[in-house]
Amino acid sequence: MSEHKSSVTVPSLQLCRLMRPDDANIFGSVHGGTILRMIEEAGGIISTRHCNTQDGDRCVAALGRVEKTEFLSPMFIGEVAHVCAEITYTSQHSVEVQVHVMSENVLTGAKKVTNKAALWYVPCSLKNVDKILDVPPIKYASPEQEEAGRKRHEVQKTVRLNTKERNEEVPPPASKPEPHTVGFSQSSLIHLVGPNDCMFNDFVNGGVTMKLMDEVAGIVGARHCNTRIVTACVDAINFHRKIKKGSLLKVQGRITFTSPRSMEIQVIVDVEPLIEADKATYRAVSAFFTFISLDKDNRPLPVPLLKVEGEEEQRRFEEGKERYLQNKARRIADSQVAP
Amino acid sequence: MSEHKSSVTVPSLQLCRLMRPDDANIFGSVHGGTILRMIEEAGGIISTRHCNTQDGDRCVAALGRVEKTEFLSPMFIGEVAHVCAEITYTSQHSVEVQVHVMSENVLTGAKKVTNKAALWYVPCSLKNVDKILDVPPIKYASPEQEEAGRKRHEVQKTVRLNTKERNEEVPPPASKPEPHTVGFSQSSLIHLVGPNDCMFNDFVNGGVTMKLMDEVAGIVGARHCNTRIVTACVDAINFHRKIKKGSLLKVQGRITFTSPRSMEIQVIVDVEPLIEADKATYRAVSAFFTFISLDKDNRPLPVPLLKVEGEEEQRRFEEGKERYLQNKARRIADSQVAP
Amino acid sequence: MSEHKSSVTVPSLQLCRLMRPDDANIFGSVHGGTILRMIEEAGGIISTRHCNTQDGDRCVAALGRVEKTEFLSPMFIGEVAHVCAEITYTSQHSVEVQVHVMSENVLTGAKKVTNKAALWYVPCSLKNVDKILDVPPIKYASPEQEEAGRKRHEVQKTVRLNTKERNEEVPPPASKPEPHTVGFSQSSLIHLVGPNDCMFNDFVNGGVTMKLMDEVAGIVGARHCNTRIVTACVDAINFHRKIKKGSLLKVQGRITFTSPRSMEIQVIVDVEPLIEADKATYRAVSAFFTFISLDKDNRPLPVPLLKVEGEEEQRRFEEGKERYLQNKARRIADSQVAP
Repeated sequence: MSEHKSSVTVPSLQLCRLMRPDDANIFGSVHGGTILRMIEEAGGIISTRHCNTQDGDRCVAALGRVEKTEFLSPMFIGEVAHVCAEITYTSQHSVEVQVHVMSENVLTGAKKVTNKAALWYVPCSLKNVDKILDVPPIKYASPEQEEAGRKRHEVQKTVRLNTKERNEEVPPPASKPEPHTVGFSQSSLIHLVGPNDCMFNDFVNGGVTMKLMDEVAGIVGARHCNTRIVTACVDAINFHRKIKKGSLLKVQGRITFTSPRSMEIQVIVDVEPLIEADKATYRAVSAFFTFISLDKDNRPLPVPLLKVEGEEEQRRFEEGKERYLQNKARRIADSQVAP
Repeated sequence: MSEHKSSVTVPSLQLCRLMRPDDANIFGSVHGGTILRMIEEAGGIISTRHCNTQDGDRCVAALGRVEKTEFLSPMFIGEVAHVCAEITYTSQHSVEVQVHVMSENVLTGAKKVTNKAALWYVPCSLKNVDKILDVPPIKYASPEQEEAGRKRHEVQKTVRLNTKERNEEVPPPASKPEPHTVGFSQSSLIHLVGPNDCMFNDFVNGGVTMKLMDEVAGIVGARHCNTRIVTACVDAINFHRKIKKGSLLKVQGRITFTSPRSMEIQVIVDVEPLIEADKATYRAVSAFFTFISLDKDNRPLPVPLLKVEGEEEQRRFEEGKERYLQNKARRIADSQVAP
Repeated sequence: MSEHKSSVTVPSLQLCRLMRPDDANIFGSVHGGTILRMIEEAGGIISTRHCNTQDGDRCVAALGRVEKTEFLSPMFIGEVAHVCAEITYTSQHSVEVQVHVMSENVLTGAKKVTNKAALWYVPCSLKNVDKILDVPPIKYASPEQEEAGRKRHEVQKTVRLNTKERNEEVPPPASKPEPHTVGFSQSSLIHLVGPNDCMFNDFVNGGVTMKLMDEVAGIVGARHCNTRIVTACVDAINFHRKIKKGSLLKVQGRITFTSPRSMEIQVIVDVEPLIEADKATYRAVSAFFTFISLDKDNRPLPVPLLKVEGEEEQRRFEEGKERYLQNKARRIADSQVAP
């Protein structure tokens, strides 16, 4: 194949699937977790495909990080989800994939952009899962494009390194907590990793973990608000360790902050390797989900104020407020920049 | 939209999905049924979308006929299935969709055509499912193309009509048992143990077997009562032998006893080790399920009396009555002991 | 670990999961089988975890017995199921797990106990599934508690032994058909149409029906050949009547013809509208599937000749042969036309 041709065929992929009752809550809106799982499936396929376009060891692309993801518009049962993934940058050992999600109502013809996401993958050898392989370079449309990718790569590397340390304990909730306290809505979910959660090798697909995280955050949010709630945003998630088949995932969620129209829920995933020799439980992932509350016509409802108890909860509330204000400022800045 | 533009945009669609353990048999090859379902999903989406591109009633495209489909090459777990659908002909009331399926091994880059299929759809009004709507015409690349489509349409209409008569000729089962007899509601269910039924090793989780048992008991109960029914109680179940992946479970259920407000259903699980050296079928588990019948406000309804035929059924009815009376006595005793 | 600490950490586990449409019947109440499966999952995890807390062979806890389980109150789609499991007794070779299930309506805050269950597990070595390992002892809160557990263990051992004999008494089916006859491999499958089988309206997607048809044909083929088999071809299928949610599909398959390298299987779908006013069963679809038999390297194997019995089977065999020869002739013609 000629030089020219390969620069034309940008590595891209389009997944597309009809949304079923199981993909949605009882009000018919598709779970954020379902969409996160499709996004990761598209990213996993395209980066695994790309990293195997060279000679040498076969490999599987493992999810390393998902950048902050916003849910711009809800999706419903019976709509078709279109998930378009494209490789936008490669470093020596990592692949950046950008994904667009669109919903299509085939009855009315209406189409809406529901998500834009960016994911980072690392190619792990099939023979030895701890060996990271080299990534074949892609062609860029312009030197500026390549430079922008290099910057995104530097930023995520720095941020990723910093988050590695934070490991907070989630204490068990008090007995019979009062409504609108942290303890009242605190939830957890336990999942045994089965064959269907793993694809090319014996390690969980990142999308499976994210779907569980969204599910537990959804339970926390519903408990706090007693209304129908939907995912509005997921902060960046870092995946530091691979999770093996047969492990037990403990996914815990608790509210950290509420604004008048949104709530921030922290989700933590701990892994217990049930039948391994080394059974030490470890923290695999943690992230902040933002949910909003809707009435039956999909209009935002006020979110009850979180009743904070103790210094620890107060500190987390302040940190959440900080993130909320920063995001708000960024959104305003973005909207002013836009043409 | 200009004439030219609409003739260029041939209505087409591409589905794409990673193949999971659940999609395949225990040797890793994807079931033909999984592929057929994806083909129909693509066909249903593209024809529903096309038939809604005009004003008037919204509609859903219902599958009318699938032409002969060949499976040209196997597909495996971990491969990506690409399903491309295109509308190739429209008559006043029907849509022809042609579908190509390709498998892609993202590790080796190998791609293979696995199927070519043709499906016919009919647009049914959403308001009145028996009302067939008109299909908007498509543009053809050439008059020959349109003519070829018209011929395929004529052929399928003729063949379809013939099979309709053939199907209706089929006589009903010779001995239709009388309602409320044991034979009338007796049901069975056959399940091939797949990868997802086994967790840590190659043996079925007991919970999978119990779920199937409850499912068959539910069908028996629904047939006997013709109402919504729910599980009230399961007697002790003993698991004497492990059931290996690849075995065939035959789960049979029959009513043994009815009280005025409940029915007892015996469920038996026989195992046929399809791919073992010793293929002797053995009885793995059996248990008694008690179901009750509910109205739409979840209040108990009377259960029709079982019509017992023959000594064997009479004996089982008496034994069921015995268990029923014992349970009742125990419940009364328990409630008196409680403080 | 100190004496004190291990006496405090009673081995316990809490599973929790949102109930989905697939977990329930079409009226929204969760299947007893779904709950039984969750109960067993919790029991399996906690006992596998406990039995691996010692050095030596890794093991998996296999379910030996479930005590009588009552369903005290219904659970619905959209509720959260909480499944709490606790190890309450251990003998040398078995573990007793007690499980409580509670439903929580996160919108109203209502919580209800739905089940209490007791299960017995046995640790089987991962290396040799027939080797039963020793169970590490647990600490009891009081000698009375241990004594009560010992009594439950004795009772279940006695009852279990009795049912073992009872199970083995069951005579094999009266007339076991001879291998390679039509009757020997004839199979059927019963499926209750649920919410997830229907997409835009209340009627089954054609693809769901085709998947079930392929599944039953696969069972017939596997029984006839005792090898791995794959779908080679499906003849045209006509869908004459829509199938409504809540209907019962009876999918039956039987071999009609064998060539040296293939077999033709006829699949028939009959529909019983369980909850309609007109409950007459009707024939919805029928089709011919062709399967081939493969060795472990995916090379075709010979198919055993069908033993035909009676005029009816002979007629169907001849008709199948006719279709086979026509297809073969067409394939040869097609390959000669190709450039």
